[in-house]
Amino acid sequence: MGMKTLGRHLVVEMYGVQSALLHDLSLAKRVLRESIEACKATFMGEHYTVFAGGGISGIVVIAESHISIHTWPEHGYAAVDIFTCGDQVDPWSAYEVFIKHYSPSRVNVTEIKRGIVEA
Amino acid sequence: MGMKTLGRHLVVEMYGVQSALLHDLSLAKRVLRESIEACKATFMGEHYTVFAGGGISGIVVIAESHISIHTWPEHGYAAVDIFTCGDQVDPWSAYEVFIKHYSPSRVNVTEIKRGIVEA
Repeated sequence: MGMKTLGRHLVVEMYGVQSALLHDLSLAKRVLRESIEACKATFMGEHYTVFAGGGISGIVVIAESHISIHTWPEHGYAAVDIFTCGDQVDPWSAYEVFIKHYSPSRVNVTEIKRGIVEA
Repeated sequence: MGMKTLGRHLVVEMYGVQSALLHDLSLAKRVLRESIEACKATFMGEHYTVFAGGGISGIVVIAESHISIHTWPEHGYAAVDIFTCGDQVDPWSAYEVFIKHYSPSRVNVTEIKRGIVEA
């Protein structure tokens, strides 16, 4: 019996992002929504938090798992997770949306296979 | 100048979990809430989805990032993410809560350092 992978999870580290972008809640909402469309995922719910000290957390739950961003404007850094399951959704299409809008000077991405099970 | 890490992210793969537990929405809510308490994180919001075909998605946003679970009862598998920032919160305390309630026969955990910046 062969094995298959249920999901793919991109762990994205964006460095060298302009601080103003990382403070911008409406941008975060637009990027998360657009990233869902880009990878053809199905929106299920969302939650956003703006921190008094600066920084935003945004998470969208999709039928195929979740996409999230947490920003640290004081460090020009954002942590992005793009976790999708199924063969119909390509997490890299969502990734491109983040890169386009945040233009990090340096980015580190690790793709993790999630759920390696019997096919 | 030295470097510091903003967050720690546990990528947890739980295999061999009883199917009934992975269908149980109230259990997922209890485990997520209890895991927040265990690691002394601050609750900000949550979202749960129950899928018609079986399986649950649950995400809690915490002031220190997020904790999530996605379950595949048909495979006895759940994907858990415990992403915390700051020195006051220990993601491994939250991890223990998941293991206690779901009793996976096999578990794989990877700890990822998130946000390596100048101190």
